[in-house]
Amino acid sequence: MEDFVFGKNSVIELLNNKKRNVSKIIILKGAKDSKTETIISLAKERGIVFQFVPKEKFTKFSKDAHQGVVAYVAPVEYTELEDFLNKKKDGYKRVVILDGIEDPHNVGAIIRSAVCAGLDAVILPSRRTSLINSTVEKSSMGAVNLIDIVMVNSLSSTIDILKDRDFWIIASEAEGKDNYFDIDYCGMNFALVMGGEHSGISSTIMKKADFKVKIPMSANFNSLNVSNAAAIIMFEAFKQLLKNKNL
Amino acid sequence: MEDFVFGKNSVIELLNNKKRNVSKIIILKGAKDSKTETIISLAKERGIVFQFVPKEKFTKFSKDAHQGVVAYVAPVEYTELEDFLNKKKDGYKRVVILDGIEDPHNVGAIIRSAVCAGLDAVILPSRRTSLINSTVEKSSMGAVNLIDIVMVNSLSSTIDILKDRDFWIIASEAEGKDNYFDIDYCGMNFALVMGGEHSGISSTIMKKADFKVKIPMSANFNSLNVSNAAAIIMFEAFKQLLKNKNL
Repeated sequence: MEDFVFGKNSVIELLNNKKRNVSKIIILKGAKDSKTETIISLAKERGIVFQFVPKEKFTKFSKDAHQGVVAYVAPVEYTELEDFLNKKKDGYKRVVILDGIEDPHNVGAIIRSAVCAGLDAVILPSRRTSLINSTVEKSSMGAVNLIDIVMVNSLSSTIDILKDRDFWIIASEAEGKDNYFDIDYCGMNFALVMGGEHSGISSTIMKKADFKVKIPMSANFNSLNVSNAAAIIMFEAFKQLLKNKNL
Repeated sequence: MEDFVFGKNSVIELLNNKKRNVSKIIILKGAKDSKTETIISLAKERGIVFQFVPKEKFTKFSKDAHQGVVAYVAPVEYTELEDFLNKKKDGYKRVVILDGIEDPHNVGAIIRSAVCAGLDAVILPSRRTSLINSTVEKSSMGAVNLIDIVMVNSLSSTIDILKDRDFWIIASEAEGKDNYFDIDYCGMNFALVMGGEHSGISSTIMKKADFKVKIPMSANFNSLNVSNAAAIIMFEAFKQLLKNKNL
Protein backbone atom coordinates (compact mmCIF):
# COMPACT_ATOMS: atom_id res chain seq x y z
CA MET A 1 0.00 0.00 0.00
CA GLU A 2 1.33 3.35 -1.00
CA ASP A 3 0.86 6.25 1.32
CA PHE A 4 1.16 9.99 0.86
CA VAL A 5 2.88 12.79 2.69
CA PHE A 6 1.44 16.26 2.23
CA GLY A 7 2.81 19.73 2.72
CA LYS A 8 6.19 21.33 2.31
CA ASN A 9 7.57 21.00 5.82
CA SER A 10 6.47 17.39 6.11
CA VAL A 11 8.00 16.48 2.75
CA ILE A 12 11.30 18.17 3.65
CA GLU A 13 11.37 16.24 6.91
CA LEU A 14 10.60 13.06 4.98
CA LEU A 15 13.39 13.62 2.46
CA ASN A 16 15.87 14.25 5.25
CA ASN A 17 15.17 10.81 6.62
CA LYS A 18 17.26 8.37 4.61
CA LYS A 19 15.35 5.44 6.04
CA ARG A 20 12.14 6.39 4.25
CA ASN A 21 11.50 5.08 0.83
CA VAL A 22 10.01 7.79 -1.38
CA SER A 23 8.88 6.70 -4.83
CA LYS A 24 8.01 10.09 -6.30
CA ILE A 25 7.06 13.65 -5.53
CA ILE A 26 4.55 15.82 -7.34
CA ILE A 27 4.87 19.58 -7.17
CA LEU A 28 2.41 22.21 -8.34
CA LYS A 29 3.54 23.73 -11.63
CA GLY A 30 5.00 27.19 -11.18
CA ALA A 31 5.92 26.81 -7.49
CA LYS A 32 9.10 28.78 -6.88
CA ASP A 33 9.39 29.41 -3.15
CA SER A 34 12.43 28.47 -1.12
CA LYS A 35 10.86 25.42 0.51
CA THR A 36 10.01 24.01 -2.90
CA GLU A 37 13.62 24.63 -3.96
CA THR A 38 14.79 22.71 -0.91
CA ILE A 39 12.48 19.83 -1.79
CA ILE A 40 13.81 19.72 -5.34
CA SER A 41 17.43 19.75 -4.30
CA LEU A 42 16.88 17.06 -1.68
CA ALA A 43 15.03 14.93 -4.22
CA LYS A 44 17.87 15.33 -6.72
CA GLU A 45 20.41 14.44 -4.07
CA ARG A 46 18.54 11.22 -3.30
CA GLY A 47 17.73 10.39 -6.91
CA ILE A 48 13.98 10.61 -6.31
CA VAL A 49 11.72 11.36 -9.26
CA PHE A 50 9.81 14.64 -9.05
CA GLN A 51 7.25 16.07 -11.44
CA PHE A 52 5.70 19.45 -11.92
CA VAL A 53 1.99 18.90 -12.45
CA PRO A 54 -1.07 21.10 -13.02
CA LYS A 55 -3.42 21.66 -10.14
CA GLU A 56 -5.94 19.12 -11.46
CA LYS A 57 -3.54 16.40 -10.35
CA PHE A 58 -4.10 17.51 -6.78
CA THR A 59 -7.87 17.11 -6.94
CA LYS A 60 -7.85 13.77 -5.19
CA PHE A 61 -5.83 15.28 -2.35
CA SER A 62 -8.12 18.28 -2.00
CA LYS A 63 -9.14 17.34 1.53
CA ASP A 64 -5.52 17.50 2.67
CA ALA A 65 -3.41 20.59 3.33
CA HIS A 66 -0.94 19.66 0.59
CA GLN A 67 0.36 23.16 -0.24
CA GLY A 68 1.08 21.94 -3.75
CA VAL A 69 3.46 19.17 -2.72
CA VAL A 70 2.69 15.49 -2.30
CA ALA A 71 5.23 12.69 -1.79
CA TYR A 72 4.39 9.05 -2.52
CA VAL A 73 5.97 6.88 0.11
CA ALA A 74 6.18 3.40 1.38
CA PRO A 75 4.56 3.17 4.81
CA VAL A 76 6.59 4.20 7.84
CA GLU A 77 9.28 1.73 8.73
CA TYR A 78 8.51 0.23 12.04
CA THR A 79 11.19 -0.82 14.49
CA GLU A 80 11.04 -4.29 16.02
CA LEU A 81 10.64 -4.25 19.79
CA GLU A 82 13.74 -6.43 20.25
CA ASP A 83 15.80 -4.16 18.03
CA PHE A 84 14.69 -1.14 20.00
CA LEU A 85 15.47 -2.78 23.33
CA ASN A 86 18.88 -3.89 22.13
CA LYS A 87 19.88 -0.44 20.94
CA LYS A 88 22.69 1.00 22.98
CA LYS A 89 21.92 4.18 24.86
CA ASP A 90 23.76 6.07 27.56
CA GLY A 91 21.24 6.43 30.32
CA TYR A 92 17.66 5.35 30.64
CA LYS A 93 15.13 4.70 27.92
CA ARG A 94 11.72 6.34 27.86
CA VAL A 95 8.79 5.32 25.74
CA VAL A 96 5.14 6.15 25.38
CA ILE A 97 2.58 3.41 24.73
CA LEU A 98 -0.69 4.27 22.98
CA ASP A 99 -3.42 1.91 24.09
CA GLY A 100 -6.35 2.29 21.72
CA ILE A 101 -5.96 5.90 20.60
CA GLU A 102 -8.06 6.16 17.49
CA ASP A 103 -7.89 9.73 16.24
CA PRO A 104 -4.92 10.05 13.87
CA HIS A 105 -4.52 13.74 14.83
CA ASN A 106 -4.01 12.67 18.41
CA VAL A 107 -1.55 9.92 17.44
CA GLY A 108 0.40 12.42 15.31
CA ALA A 109 0.43 15.09 18.01
CA ILE A 110 1.62 12.61 20.64
CA ILE A 111 4.45 11.42 18.39
CA ARG A 112 5.43 15.05 17.83
CA SER A 113 5.43 15.80 21.55
CA ALA A 114 7.32 12.58 22.28
CA VAL A 115 10.12 13.67 19.94
CA CYS A 116 10.16 17.18 21.46
CA ALA A 117 10.32 15.73 24.96
CA GLY A 118 13.23 13.47 24.03
CA LEU A 119 11.50 10.11 24.30
CA ASP A 120 13.03 7.14 22.52
CA ALA A 121 10.06 5.28 21.08
CA VAL A 122 6.32 5.19 20.58
CA ILE A 123 4.73 1.76 20.95
CA LEU A 124 1.36 1.00 19.37
CA PRO A 125 -0.69 -2.15 19.18
CA SER A 126 -1.52 -3.22 15.65
CA ARG A 127 -5.20 -3.32 16.61
CA ARG A 128 -7.30 -0.73 18.41
CA THR A 129 -5.09 2.13 17.26
CA SER A 130 -4.81 4.42 14.32
CA LEU A 131 -2.03 3.14 12.06
CA ILE A 132 0.64 5.56 10.98
CA ASN A 133 -1.09 6.92 7.89
CA SER A 134 -0.60 10.22 6.12
CA THR A 135 -2.87 12.09 8.55
CA VAL A 136 -0.77 10.89 11.47
CA GLU A 137 2.40 11.80 9.64
CA LYS A 138 1.12 15.27 8.80
CA SER A 139 -0.14 15.88 12.35
CA SER A 140 3.26 14.81 13.62
CA MET A 141 4.88 17.42 11.34
CA GLY A 142 7.25 14.75 10.15
CA ALA A 143 8.22 13.67 13.68
CA VAL A 144 7.33 10.04 12.85
CA ASN A 145 10.70 9.93 11.10
CA LEU A 146 12.65 11.00 14.15
CA ILE A 147 11.70 8.37 16.67
CA ASP A 148 11.39 4.60 16.77
CA ILE A 149 7.82 3.54 16.05
CA VAL A 150 7.25 0.04 17.41
CA MET A 151 4.11 -1.80 16.31
CA VAL A 152 3.25 -4.83 18.43
CA ASN A 153 0.59 -7.52 18.32
CA SER A 154 -0.04 -7.67 22.03
CA LEU A 155 0.44 -4.72 24.34
CA SER A 156 0.02 -6.97 27.31
CA SER A 157 2.96 -9.22 26.46
CA THR A 158 4.97 -6.19 25.35
CA ILE A 159 4.54 -4.76 28.83
CA ASP A 160 5.73 -8.05 30.33
CA ILE A 161 8.82 -7.88 28.15
CA LEU A 162 9.43 -4.24 29.12
CA LYS A 163 9.16 -5.14 32.80
CA ASP A 164 11.66 -7.95 32.30
CA ARG A 165 13.97 -5.42 30.76
CA ASP A 166 13.75 -3.16 33.77
CA PHE A 167 11.14 -0.68 32.61
CA TRP A 168 8.65 0.85 35.05
CA ILE A 169 5.11 1.13 33.74
CA ILE A 170 3.33 4.43 34.37
CA ALA A 171 -0.37 4.49 33.50
CA SER A 172 -2.13 7.81 33.03
CA GLU A 173 -5.52 7.55 34.67
CA ALA A 174 -8.12 10.08 35.81
CA GLU A 175 -8.52 8.17 39.09
CA GLY A 176 -4.79 7.60 39.53
CA LYS A 177 -3.27 7.50 42.99
CA ASP A 178 -0.34 9.83 42.46
CA ASN A 179 -0.20 13.25 40.91
CA TYR A 180 1.85 13.07 37.73
CA PHE A 181 4.27 15.66 39.10
CA ASP A 182 5.04 13.67 42.22
CA ILE A 183 6.75 10.88 40.27
CA ASP A 184 10.52 10.93 39.92
CA TYR A 185 11.04 10.17 36.24
CA CYS A 186 14.80 10.47 36.27
CA GLY A 187 16.28 7.30 37.69
CA MET A 188 14.50 4.67 35.62
CA ASN A 189 13.52 3.35 32.25
CA PHE A 190 9.85 4.13 31.93
CA ALA A 191 6.91 3.39 29.68
CA LEU A 192 4.09 5.91 29.93
CA VAL A 193 0.75 4.36 28.90
CA MET A 194 -1.95 6.65 27.48
CA GLY A 195 -5.43 5.22 26.97
CA GLY A 196 -7.85 5.72 24.09
CA GLU A 197 -10.29 8.60 23.76
CA HIS A 198 -13.31 6.50 24.66
CA SER A 199 -12.36 3.51 26.72
CA GLY A 200 -9.12 4.59 28.38
CA ILE A 201 -6.45 2.04 29.25
CA SER A 202 -7.63 -1.56 29.02
CA SER A 203 -7.96 -3.34 32.34
CA THR A 204 -5.33 -6.02 31.63
CA ILE A 205 -2.78 -3.27 30.98
CA MET A 206 -3.88 -1.24 33.98
CA LYS A 207 -3.26 -4.20 36.28
CA LYS A 208 0.37 -4.30 35.22
CA ALA A 209 1.07 -0.65 35.93
CA ASP A 210 3.64 0.19 38.58
CA PHE A 211 2.32 3.72 38.93
CA LYS A 212 -1.09 5.16 38.17
CA VAL A 213 -0.82 8.88 37.76
CA LYS A 214 -3.51 11.50 37.44
CA ILE A 215 -3.41 15.06 36.25
CA PRO A 216 -5.27 17.01 38.92
CA MET A 217 -7.76 19.38 37.38
CA SER A 218 -10.04 22.21 38.20
CA ALA A 219 -13.25 21.07 39.85
CA ASN A 220 -15.77 21.86 37.17
CA PHE A 221 -14.42 19.80 34.28
CA ASN A 222 -12.26 16.74 34.11
CA SER A 223 -11.56 15.71 30.57
CA LEU A 224 -8.37 16.60 28.78
CA ASN A 225 -7.67 15.78 25.16
CA VAL A 226 -5.36 12.73 25.24
CA SER A 227 -2.56 14.39 23.28
CA ASN A 228 -2.62 17.33 25.68
CA ALA A 229 -2.55 14.98 28.66
CA ALA A 230 0.38 13.08 27.14
CA ALA A 231 2.26 16.33 26.51
CA ILE A 232 1.75 17.49 30.10
CA ILE A 233 3.20 14.29 31.55
CA MET A 234 6.02 13.84 29.04
CA PHE A 235 7.14 17.43 29.56
CA GLU A 236 7.03 17.09 33.34
CA ALA A 237 9.42 14.17 32.89
CA PHE A 238 11.58 16.16 30.48
CA LYS A 239 11.71 19.13 32.85
CA GLN A 240 12.89 16.86 35.67
CA LEU A 241 15.52 15.37 33.39
CA LEU A 242 16.72 18.82 32.35
CA LYS A 243 16.98 19.90 35.97
CA ASN A 244 18.89 16.72 36.81
CA LYS A 245 20.98 16.94 33.64
CA ASN A 246 20.23 13.29 33.37
CA LEU A 247 19.41 13.20 29.67
CA MET B 1 -26.91 22.08 19.95
CA GLU B 2 -26.80 23.99 16.77
CA ASP B 3 -29.44 26.51 15.92
CA PHE B 4 -30.65 27.75 12.53
CA VAL B 5 -31.57 31.09 11.07
CA PHE B 6 -33.73 31.06 7.92
CA GLY B 7 -34.35 33.51 5.12
CA LYS B 8 -32.33 36.17 3.39
CA ASN B 9 -33.15 39.20 5.52
CA SER B 10 -32.73 37.28 8.75
CA VAL B 11 -29.39 35.91 7.67
CA ILE B 12 -28.18 39.37 6.62
CA GLU B 13 -29.21 40.71 10.00
CA LEU B 14 -27.49 37.82 11.70
CA LEU B 15 -24.28 38.42 9.78
CA ASN B 16 -24.33 42.08 10.71
CA ASN B 17 -24.38 41.16 14.37
CA LYS B 18 -20.79 40.48 15.27
CA LYS B 19 -21.73 38.95 18.59
CA ARG B 20 -23.57 36.10 16.95
CA ASN B 21 -21.54 33.11 16.06
CA VAL B 22 -22.31 31.61 12.66
CA SER B 23 -20.65 28.33 11.80
CA LYS B 24 -21.80 27.97 8.21
CA ILE B 25 -24.36 29.06 5.65
CA ILE B 26 -26.00 26.96 2.98
CA ILE B 27 -27.33 28.65 -0.14
CA LEU B 28 -29.48 27.16 -2.87
CA LYS B 29 -27.42 26.39 -5.94
CA GLY B 30 -27.95 28.94 -8.70
CA ALA B 31 -29.17 31.80 -6.47
CA LYS B 32 -27.97 35.08 -7.95
CA ASP B 33 -30.10 37.91 -6.51
CA SER B 34 -28.64 40.91 -4.73
CA LYS B 35 -29.52 39.75 -1.21
CA THR B 36 -27.70 36.50 -1.81
CA GLU B 37 -24.73 38.52 -3.03
CA THR B 38 -24.87 40.56 0.19
CA ILE B 39 -24.92 37.38 2.24
CA ILE B 40 -21.91 36.00 0.39
CA SER B 41 -19.90 39.16 0.79
CA LEU B 42 -20.73 39.44 4.50
CA ALA B 43 -19.82 35.79 4.98
CA LYS B 44 -16.50 36.31 3.23
CA GLU B 45 -15.80 39.38 5.32
CA ARG B 46 -16.38 37.44 8.51
CA GLY B 47 -14.56 34.32 7.36
CA ILE B 48 -17.70 32.19 7.53
CA VAL B 49 -17.94 29.07 5.39
CA PHE B 50 -20.74 29.08 2.80
CA GLN B 51 -21.79 26.30 0.45
CA PHE B 52 -24.01 26.13 -2.58
CA VAL B 53 -26.18 23.06 -2.24
CA PRO B 54 -28.97 21.39 -4.26
CA LYS B 55 -32.53 21.82 -3.06
CA GLU B 56 -32.64 18.35 -1.51
CA LYS B 57 -30.44 19.70 1.25
CA PHE B 58 -33.27 22.00 2.29
CA THR B 59 -35.76 19.17 2.75
CA LYS B 60 -35.35 19.08 6.50
CA PHE B 61 -36.05 22.82 6.65
CA SER B 62 -39.13 22.56 4.43
CA LYS B 63 -41.45 23.79 7.17
CA ASP B 64 -39.47 27.02 7.45
CA ALA B 65 -39.53 30.01 5.09
CA HIS B 66 -35.90 29.60 4.23
CA GLN B 67 -35.89 31.25 0.78
CA GLY B 68 -32.91 29.07 -0.11
CA VAL B 69 -30.69 30.35 2.70
CA VAL B 70 -30.02 28.75 6.07
CA ALA B 71 -27.36 29.79 8.58
CA TYR B 72 -26.11 27.40 11.23
CA VAL B 73 -25.58 29.25 14.46
CA ALA B 74 -23.52 27.97 17.32
CA PRO B 75 -24.97 28.74 20.70
CA VAL B 76 -21.84 30.09 22.36
CA GLU B 77 -22.35 33.37 24.09
CA TYR B 78 -19.38 35.65 24.16
CA THR B 79 -18.51 37.71 27.21
CA GLU B 80 -17.59 41.36 26.88
CA LEU B 81 -14.06 42.15 28.06
CA GLU B 82 -15.30 44.81 30.49
CA ASP B 83 -17.85 42.42 31.97
CA PHE B 84 -15.18 39.80 32.45
CA LEU B 85 -12.80 42.26 34.08
CA ASN B 86 -15.51 43.55 36.39
CA LYS B 87 -16.51 40.10 37.60
CA LYS B 88 -15.69 39.56 41.24
CA LYS B 89 -13.21 36.82 42.03
CA ASP B 90 -11.33 35.89 45.16
CA GLY B 91 -7.73 35.80 44.11
CA TYR B 92 -6.06 36.39 40.79
CA LYS B 93 -7.51 36.02 37.31
CA ARG B 94 -5.84 33.95 34.63
CA VAL B 95 -6.59 34.02 30.95
CA VAL B 96 -5.21 32.61 27.74
CA ILE B 97 -5.10 34.72 24.59
CA LEU B 98 -5.12 33.03 21.18
CA ASP B 99 -3.28 35.16 18.65
CA GLY B 100 -4.06 33.82 15.19
CA ILE B 101 -4.71 30.15 15.92
CA GLU B 102 -6.54 28.89 12.86
CA ASP B 103 -7.20 25.20 13.33
CA PRO B 104 -10.54 24.80 15.11
CA HIS B 105 -9.34 21.52 16.66
CA ASN B 106 -6.53 23.44 18.32
CA VAL B 107 -8.85 26.20 19.50
CA GLY B 108 -11.24 23.61 20.94
CA ALA B 109 -8.47 21.64 22.64
CA ILE B 110 -7.01 24.80 24.19
CA ILE B 111 -10.40 25.86 25.55
CA ARG B 112 -10.81 22.38 27.01
CA SER B 113 -7.38 22.48 28.66
CA ALA B 114 -8.01 26.02 29.90
CA VAL B 115 -11.14 24.86 31.71
CA CYS B 116 -9.32 21.83 33.14
CA ALA B 117 -6.47 24.03 34.34
CA GLY B 118 -8.88 26.41 36.06
CA LEU B 119 -8.35 29.47 33.88
CA ASP B 120 -11.01 32.16 33.88
CA ALA B 121 -11.28 33.17 30.23
CA VAL B 122 -10.13 32.60 26.69
CA ILE B 123 -9.62 35.75 24.62
CA LEU B 124 -9.67 35.63 20.84
CA PRO B 125 -9.42 38.33 18.21
CA SER B 126 -12.35 38.40 15.82
CA ARG B 127 -9.93 38.14 12.92
CA ARG B 128 -6.97 35.82 12.37
CA THR B 129 -8.54 33.13 14.53
CA SER B 130 -10.96 30.30 14.12
CA LEU B 131 -14.32 31.44 15.40
CA ILE B 132 -16.12 29.27 17.90
CA ASN B 133 -17.89 27.07 15.38
CA SER B 134 -19.27 23.61 15.85
CA THR B 135 -15.86 21.98 15.24
CA VAL B 136 -14.36 24.06 18.01
CA GLU B 137 -17.28 23.27 20.24
CA LYS B 138 -16.96 19.57 19.52
CA SER B 139 -13.18 19.57 20.05
CA SER B 140 -13.68 21.38 23.33
CA MET B 141 -16.08 18.62 24.45
CA GLY B 142 -18.52 21.31 25.47
CA ALA B 143 -15.95 23.23 27.52
CA VAL B 144 -16.81 26.39 25.55
CA ASN B 145 -19.83 26.69 27.78
CA LEU B 146 -17.81 26.50 31.00
CA ILE B 147 -15.49 29.45 30.62
CA ASP B 148 -15.78 33.07 29.54
CA ILE B 149 -15.03 33.38 25.84
CA VAL B 150 -14.10 36.97 25.06
CA MET B 151 -13.98 38.01 21.42
CA VAL B 152 -12.17 41.30 20.80
CA ASN B 153 -11.50 43.45 17.75
CA SER B 154 -7.97 44.39 18.66
CA LEU B 155 -5.69 42.16 20.69
CA SER B 156 -3.20 44.95 20.99
CA SER B 157 -5.56 47.35 22.74
CA THR B 158 -6.97 44.46 24.78
CA ILE B 159 -3.49 43.82 26.10
CA ASP B 160 -3.13 47.50 27.01
CA ILE B 161 -6.39 47.27 28.93
CA LEU B 162 -5.27 44.08 30.68
CA LYS B 163 -2.00 45.76 31.70
CA ASP B 164 -3.93 48.72 33.08
CA ARG B 165 -5.94 46.24 35.10
CA ASP B 166 -2.82 44.74 36.62
CA PHE B 167 -2.37 41.69 34.40
CA TRP B 168 1.09 40.40 33.52
CA ILE B 169 1.49 39.34 29.91
CA ILE B 170 3.30 36.05 29.31
CA ALA B 171 4.14 35.26 25.69
CA SER B 172 4.96 31.69 24.69
CA GLU B 173 7.86 31.83 22.26
CA ALA B 174 10.36 29.28 20.96
CA GLU B 175 13.17 31.80 21.46
CA GLY B 176 11.86 33.00 24.83
CA LYS B 177 14.29 34.09 27.54
CA ASP B 178 12.86 32.14 30.46
CA ASN B 179 11.91 28.50 30.74
CA TYR B 180 8.16 28.26 31.27
CA PHE B 181 8.70 26.40 34.55
CA ASP B 182 10.87 29.16 36.02
CA ILE B 183 8.00 31.65 36.14
CA ASP B 184 6.06 32.07 39.38
CA TYR B 185 2.45 32.03 38.21
CA CYS B 186 0.90 32.31 41.64
CA GLY B 187 1.07 35.91 42.79
CA MET B 188 -0.37 37.70 39.80
CA ASN B 189 -3.15 38.07 37.29
CA PHE B 190 -1.73 36.72 34.07
CA ALA B 191 -2.56 36.50 30.40
CA LEU B 192 -0.76 33.71 28.55
CA VAL B 193 -0.46 34.48 24.84
CA MET B 194 -0.22 31.58 22.37
CA GLY B 195 0.63 32.34 18.73
CA GLY B 196 -0.81 30.86 15.57
CA GLU B 197 0.36 27.65 13.91
CA HIS B 198 2.19 29.43 11.11
CA SER B 199 3.17 32.92 12.10
CA GLY B 200 3.39 32.73 15.89
CA ILE B 201 2.63 35.76 18.02
CA SER B 202 2.41 39.01 16.08
CA SER B 203 5.25 41.44 16.71
CA THR B 204 3.10 44.24 18.16
CA ILE B 205 1.81 41.83 20.79
CA MET B 206 5.24 40.38 21.46
CA LYS B 207 6.61 43.84 22.26
CA LYS B 208 4.05 44.23 25.03
CA ALA B 209 4.93 40.96 26.77
CA ASP B 210 6.29 41.14 30.30
CA PHE B 211 7.70 37.61 30.06
CA LYS B 212 8.70 35.56 27.05
CA VAL B 213 8.76 31.93 27.97
CA LYS B 214 10.00 28.93 26.04
CA ILE B 215 9.40 25.25 26.44
CA PRO B 216 12.86 23.71 26.28
CA MET B 217 12.92 20.72 23.97
CA SER B 218 15.03 17.85 22.89
CA ALA B 219 17.73 18.87 20.45
CA ASN B 220 16.56 17.19 17.29
CA PHE B 221 13.10 18.69 16.89
CA ASN B 222 11.57 21.89 18.07
CA SER B 223 7.97 22.17 17.07
CA LEU B 224 5.14 21.35 19.40
CA ASN B 225 1.50 21.44 18.43
CA VAL B 226 0.14 24.71 19.83
CA SER B 227 -2.59 23.08 21.90
CA ASN B 228 -0.02 20.78 23.47
CA ALA B 229 2.27 23.72 24.19
CA ALA B 230 -0.61 25.64 25.77
CA ALA B 231 -1.52 22.63 27.91
CA ILE B 232 2.05 22.25 29.16
CA ILE B 233 2.27 25.88 30.29
CA MET B 234 -1.26 26.15 31.71
CA PHE B 235 -0.77 22.98 33.73
CA GLU B 236 2.60 24.14 35.05
CA ALA B 237 0.75 27.20 36.34
CA PHE B 238 -2.05 25.06 37.75
CA LYS B 239 0.42 22.75 39.48
CA GLN B 240 2.09 25.74 41.14
CA LEU B 241 -1.28 27.05 42.24
CA LEU B 242 -2.23 23.65 43.66
CA LYS B 243 1.01 23.48 45.60
CA ASN B 244 0.48 27.01 46.90
CA LYS B 245 -3.22 26.37 47.54
CA ASN B 246 -3.65 29.74 45.95
CA LEU B 247 -6.56 28.87 43.70
